[in-house]
Amino acid sequence: MSDTRDQILEQIKVQGDLVRQLKAAKESKEKIDEEVSRLLALKAKLGGDATPANQKFTLKTPKGTRDYGPQQMTLRQGVLDKIVQVFKRHGGEAIDTPVFELKEVLTGKYGEDSKLIYDLKDQGGEILSMRYDLTVPLARYLAMNKISSIKRYHIAKVYRRDNPAMTKGRYREFYQCDFDIAGTYDPMLADAECVKIVAEILDTLDIGDYVIKLNHRQLLDGMFEACGVPADNFRAICSAVDKLDKSPWEDVRKEMVEEKGLDEAAADRIGEYVRLSGGTELVEQLLADAKLKAVPNAVKGLEGMQLLLKYCSIFGLEKRVSFDLSLARGLDYYTGVIYEGVLKGESASVATTPVKTSRQNGDQSNEPATVGSVAGGGRYDNLVGMFDPRGKAVPCVGVSIGVERIFSVLEARAAAGGQKLRTSDVEAYVASAHKGLHEQRLKVLNQLWDAGIKAEHSYKLNPKLLVQLQHCEEHQIPLVVVLGDAELAQGLVKLREVTTRQETNVKLEDLSAEIRRRLHSAA
Amino acid sequence: MSDTRDQILEQIKVQGDLVRQLKAAKESKEKIDEEVSRLLALKAKLGGDATPANQKFTLKTPKGTRDYGPQQMTLRQGVLDKIVQVFKRHGGEAIDTPVFELKEVLTGKYGEDSKLIYDLKDQGGEILSMRYDLTVPLARYLAMNKISSIKRYHIAKVYRRDNPAMTKGRYREFYQCDFDIAGTYDPMLADAECVKIVAEILDTLDIGDYVIKLNHRQLLDGMFEACGVPADNFRAICSAVDKLDKSPWEDVRKEMVEEKGLDEAAADRIGEYVRLSGGTELVEQLLADAKLKAVPNAVKGLEGMQLLLKYCSIFGLEKRVSFDLSLARGLDYYTGVIYEGVLKGESASVATTPVKTSRQNGDQSNEPATVGSVAGGGRYDNLVGMFDPRGKAVPCVGVSIGVERIFSVLEARAAAGGQKLRTSDVEAYVASAHKGLHEQRLKVLNQLWDAGIKAEHSYKLNPKLLVQLQHCEEHQIPLVVVLGDAELAQGLVKLREVTTRQETNVKLEDLSAEIRRRLHSAA
Repeated sequence: MSDTRDQILEQIKVQGDLVRQLKAAKESKEKIDEEVSRLLALKAKLGGDATPANQKFTLKTPKGTRDYGPQQMTLRQGVLDKIVQVFKRHGGEAIDTPVFELKEVLTGKYGEDSKLIYDLKDQGGEILSMRYDLTVPLARYLAMNKISSIKRYHIAKVYRRDNPAMTKGRYREFYQCDFDIAGTYDPMLADAECVKIVAEILDTLDIGDYVIKLNHRQLLDGMFEACGVPADNFRAICSAVDKLDKSPWEDVRKEMVEEKGLDEAAADRIGEYVRLSGGTELVEQLLADAKLKAVPNAVKGLEGMQLLLKYCSIFGLEKRVSFDLSLARGLDYYTGVIYEGVLKGESASVATTPVKTSRQNGDQSNEPATVGSVAGGGRYDNLVGMFDPRGKAVPCVGVSIGVERIFSVLEARAAAGGQKLRTSDVEAYVASAHKGLHEQRLKVLNQLWDAGIKAEHSYKLNPKLLVQLQHCEEHQIPLVVVLGDAELAQGLVKLREVTTRQETNVKLEDLSAEIRRRLHSAA
Repeated sequence: MSDTRDQILEQIKVQGDLVRQLKAAKESKEKIDEEVSRLLALKAKLGGDATPANQKFTLKTPKGTRDYGPQQMTLRQGVLDKIVQVFKRHGGEAIDTPVFELKEVLTGKYGEDSKLIYDLKDQGGEILSMRYDLTVPLARYLAMNKISSIKRYHIAKVYRRDNPAMTKGRYREFYQCDFDIAGTYDPMLADAECVKIVAEILDTLDIGDYVIKLNHRQLLDGMFEACGVPADNFRAICSAVDKLDKSPWEDVRKEMVEEKGLDEAAADRIGEYVRLSGGTELVEQLLADAKLKAVPNAVKGLEGMQLLLKYCSIFGLEKRVSFDLSLARGLDYYTGVIYEGVLKGESASVATTPVKTSRQNGDQSNEPATVGSVAGGGRYDNLVGMFDPRGKAVPCVGVSIGVERIFSVLEARAAAGGQKLRTSDVEAYVASAHKGLHEQRLKVLNQLWDAGIKAEHSYKLNPKLLVQLQHCEEHQIPLVVVLGDAELAQGLVKLREVTTRQETNVKLEDLSAEIRRRLHSAA
């Protein structure tokens, strides 16, 4: 134990070289294992001292964040590709903005949630904050570039110092996936298309039964007015209603009365309305409602809903949408239609624990409880104007897909089914049947790559054939090119199908074409 | 002027409604313009007061960052798709890591560049920093998950508080695009594949003539030793050599002698070597060099180069690679081969000002000056071990593609050619020939979307036909479906090709199939 650290490091190096030589020379496993154990013993001697000085901390990602390994990335990429396809089907153009903004850009946009914004350290220069969503950066982008109409999508990570609940897909760093239509257009045409987009995405992802709840901020305001809520209390009462998806009416009523100072009769009147949901017949019923009829905001909101439901019906969405007076949505900036795509019952059970089971919703209490919001959005006509020096407004309506929750549902489902996704697209593996063929392998690989075929090999000079074949089975690589001197002498290689284990000799010059043919007929 | 702000706001609202009604009613342009000017006058009355309180700052993105609009995103996406295709052709798997790391993860990895790291504000909880590259997060990921072999790519933004030079593609927030092969393999097989990947990417991007410079850290160390540089001065002298791509030899020599305390004779000996570049013949010449022959590190480095050049030649890269003793690369963590892909002469002239024109490189001084590094990488066998509690090493070799510089070159080239990329993929536009057809449009759109056709329309109830057709020409949309009562009565629509302006009547039920057929035959 009197060896210095440097001496031990030198011994480790020598011993390591020895192990590598034995492995390269394909010595017996016993021999190699023996020398490996000596190597490990030497390393153990170093103990804590082998650890670099900076390795005193736990190796982890920051709280509320995670790495995506190849499995998660494959799943994620598949989901995002499908979503982008839908966005493009509706003429979406992509934009991207910096991950941080001047702090002032975010100030005053998120109400009490502002405390969840990540700030950067003041290192001299500008004061910056991490983006909290993609909507405020879009508004800043439109105002800054004086763009008055665009149909854009944006897929990027946003940051919230919230309490993470990672199994439910709630992270501090998470993807948002937004589609927005900005421009001065006729009522509900763009709005209805956003609802259609939500439906197309949830259909194409095939994550189970869902409903898209619809409501209108103007109707909510009108309803509050009709129920006798003072105008300066609308936002507070609205944010109480927003909690109906997590809390029973009794709790929400209590908050309205005890915390927000609403009188009990007004709260009870609200209670009557927010348990209503339905379709056009409900709009007509409410248009005939004496209290609402008297309030212009309520009538305008209802007329908007009527038009939206008509367009949704043209888009074949009658069965998918539900006009729901309990839907309020948290964000302050909405000014018109609001909507939320929600997975029903079983579909979302792996992602989130059911939270609404006790909620009554009209007389539909026998319906399976709806859980797990996976999309949401609405109209926000004044946000861009907040950034324009002259207050010039650009009306916007948009939707944000809750992809993290969707990933969680699909990951849990894949895990439950013991499903393993292919994480690489390798089409052909180039293997050596015996020693001394690595340069031949490189030649064949080069030929395949130049022909655009996805191909790989062991990075060992002389790998065992069995090990190479096992690699292909594990990684679901469909074809193996097996090189051997006997075949090569005749200008041939063996082409092996991994699943059937069938082998055929193929001329080297025909190899790429033959591989293409096989892949094509298998697809 | 005695009106209160609220009164003016109310007047603006009333006037705005009037303008909208006139527009909806298709009133004459004169009439509308008149009322619009009244509206603007009302808005002007509000003056500065219309501006929200938080709008006192300049509307901009943080220093050194930029938005990507649809044009840039289209270009960028095209470049990244091609790069990913190459990564996948070599069996790459994708991973992603958080945008920030525990500060300790980055500490001690970047030498004097650490001052460029963005830190997050301490808001309670962990102390975080923005990632500076994708290599250290990869090493952390491998050590944390005890992964001993992977072939991964990672495309993501990294952050450096550097002096931005945006026209040259140097930003504080920028994309990195990395491919790395981790695992204990035989010498140079993975390394040569990384060089091949750089060549495939630069070929597929078609950005002009390039060279991939190769060198070896062990050879550099051996050369320093042979020239009489004290061992503890290797890294400092190496970082001086690294500046040869920006400064003439005289300046670098001065830095070595005056700042780093090297004796003049040693500096001159280094000067002899670093002006050498070539191929296998140069390796052989140096293997016969009396000074280098005596230094084991130099011999090992040269033997490594010999093997690498052989494999590169099998991959058809003789003409593309250049063994260059002046290549040093800045990062401390490289332990073996290093390489850099550099655009030659004209190819890079829009991206960067030529910086090497005066540099002599052997007797090739008549060659066009090489400018603009667009890819770089090397072997780093000890970085993962720095994170492992037991110091377990995972040898790695990798390459990073300088996509921002590539974007700059391609953006400048597109701008010079007056080229405008299509930013949406819309295949068919659904237009009204006259008023009152918006619901018919929605029906037809729905039919197209459900058939997977990318389609859009004006979000106006009654847009002018000319305006709709102009939109298609501007946005290079190939087909227009024109609806009119006369045709609809017969179950027909007009299908118009935008470029030829040819129109054909098509049965509504055949529309999707006919559009597919047209798109297919045009492609």
